[in-house]
Amino acid sequence: MILTVTLNTALDLTYGVPELVPHASHRVSEMSERPGGKGLNVARVLSALGHRTVVTGFAGGATGAVLRELLADLSPQEPTDPGTGSPDAPHAPEPGTAPAPTAPAATAPAPVTDALVTVAGNTRRTIAVVDRATGDTTQLNEPGPLVTADEWAALLDRYEELLAEADAVALCGSLPPGIHVGAYAELVRSARTAGVPVLLDTSGEPLRRGIAARPDLIKPNADELAQLTGSREPMRATRDARRRGAHGVIASLGPDGMLAVTPDGIWQAAPPARVPGNPTGAGDSAVAGLLSGLVEGLSWPDRLRRAVALSTATVLSPTAGDFDRAAYEELLPRVGIEEHAPAAR
Amino acid sequence: MILTVTLNTALDLTYGVPELVPHASHRVSEMSERPGGKGLNVARVLSALGHRTVVTGFAGGATGAVLRELLADLSPQEPTDPGTGSPDAPHAPEPGTAPAPTAPAATAPAPVTDALVTVAGNTRRTIAVVDRATGDTTQLNEPGPLVTADEWAALLDRYEELLAEADAVALCGSLPPGIHVGAYAELVRSARTAGVPVLLDTSGEPLRRGIAARPDLIKPNADELAQLTGSREPMRATRDARRRGAHGVIASLGPDGMLAVTPDGIWQAAPPARVPGNPTGAGDSAVAGLLSGLVEGLSWPDRLRRAVALSTATVLSPTAGDFDRAAYEELLPRVGIEEHAPAAR
Repeated sequence: MILTVTLNTALDLTYGVPELVPHASHRVSEMSERPGGKGLNVARVLSALGHRTVVTGFAGGATGAVLRELLADLSPQEPTDPGTGSPDAPHAPEPGTAPAPTAPAATAPAPVTDALVTVAGNTRRTIAVVDRATGDTTQLNEPGPLVTADEWAALLDRYEELLAEADAVALCGSLPPGIHVGAYAELVRSARTAGVPVLLDTSGEPLRRGIAARPDLIKPNADELAQLTGSREPMRATRDARRRGAHGVIASLGPDGMLAVTPDGIWQAAPPARVPGNPTGAGDSAVAGLLSGLVEGLSWPDRLRRAVALSTATVLSPTAGDFDRAAYEELLPRVGIEEHAPAAR
Repeated sequence: MILTVTLNTALDLTYGVPELVPHASHRVSEMSERPGGKGLNVARVLSALGHRTVVTGFAGGATGAVLRELLADLSPQEPTDPGTGSPDAPHAPEPGTAPAPTAPAATAPAPVTDALVTVAGNTRRTIAVVDRATGDTTQLNEPGPLVTADEWAALLDRYEELLAEADAVALCGSLPPGIHVGAYAELVRSARTAGVPVLLDTSGEPLRRGIAARPDLIKPNADELAQLTGSREPMRATRDARRRGAHGVIASLGPDGMLAVTPDGIWQAAPPARVPGNPTGAGDSAVAGLLSGLVEGLSWPDRLRRAVALSTATVLSPTAGDFDRAAYEELLPRVGIEEHAPAAR
């Protein structure tokens, strides 16, 4: 299975209003509620790709209870046994081969198992206020519950147990109040000790500290890279990030695709065209693409094709954070891959 | 006891942000959660004035459960028996006398009893986003749960039972989806049949229909009056509202106080000075002042003094919707009352 860690899970609310006007009163005309936080979004995409996924992190209070209910609704209605050693990826092609497009198991959603640690505090809400005319979004994020030292210790225990069964792990998103800034570095080290490939997707000081613990992959966007390295030049910033400790750096360049600087080479991957839509969740879909590709033993170009096709299909989806499966399948063979000459490394 | 009806209760969230900027992302720096909806706010003030209060209306889902927990926390920790015939008002001065300022029972909070009807839908949230620099507030209101015909029938049964014990009833706020626009008219008629004085505080078509059922009191603000009558001239609009069926109309004129057109005379009541602050909940405090004064048998001038002092003390309170007790007691004797000559009636 694939493990995702979301220390600051969220109940994501989306409010539709005709137009957000500061200091006015608004009647919300449409609303939706879904379980959120980056690692939960990654798990949702992994599930859709047929990968059995376990989510851990923290959840608590009334909003935590709602989040867990909605998370339970995500899973297919079939008995699941997260303890068995059954293969997690529904198919495991040899490295370098593309997934068989006709394998039916490849598109059957796999279960998402809730292994969240209960905390006393209330899981945060995030509110996306969407102007219905333009689609522009105003975001309000609660800070999250204050996590105690005992709760953090419980998470570490749970994490160690889950690592024993994991084929890969993604560490995702911001830290809730009370969690020390080196928390991700600690989780990266445990994964490496357990021999589990680890992807770190966070920002700011937690990213800087986490990189120093030598994760297998990081997936910063241009802003996160610039904050980390001081450079907005993609190649320079990506290489700098790698020198700081990450084995592989996959820089997401928004509509321009991705730049991968890895021990095996340097590739640039780009969607066939720029697409209109909502980029919310595109980065989480890319993480799911990279991690599923790693577990399936795909080559770097195939992992990048999948990540770029998934994130582009997420931008295209009418529902923020979901991906459009038909668009994904149509885009997959059309993602352009360019390998940089070894001299450029 | 005093009964308040809130058909569209709400979990009121307040988010502090440095400044609300449309289409940007905001980290909420301060937040609070409290049980809301106008009738619940009225009950909180009645409780603080020492009046035993029962709240009914609808609550459901996860937000309804949180609302009821917070409501339970409001009540003093003592055994309560809503079925006893014990006196509700802690003191019952003769009409025309001011409440004895030294009577200790007058300031001991009385219990608020939860008699809400459970519905399948989710109680709405309202979000007040407060710019911390200016105090300006942007409001986002969810519509509320869809109430079924069976749930409405259950509310009517509960309401009839509660009316049998009530000294007065306040019908407050908007209607949730699924409730017919004549709902308040129906509730006004039941109260009149039961001989219980009824105050209606709503707006738009539900107010227009409700007035036709001849409530004892309505308490519109200038906008609600203008919407009802087409006039922004207070005396004309207030008299017009009375002709439409309300026995007494107390128009709240914001910082200018209140204009009361009643079967017993016409009075204007004004605070000693304009005060700075947040008007949220000032109208609900005025309803609590009017209703408690009615139950205690106060004269119209004393009821109006109390209503104006309470609503001014609510504007002055640092917490939206609460009233500043010291300010209330200081303001009470300083509210100016002017009686209009009978010819003006």
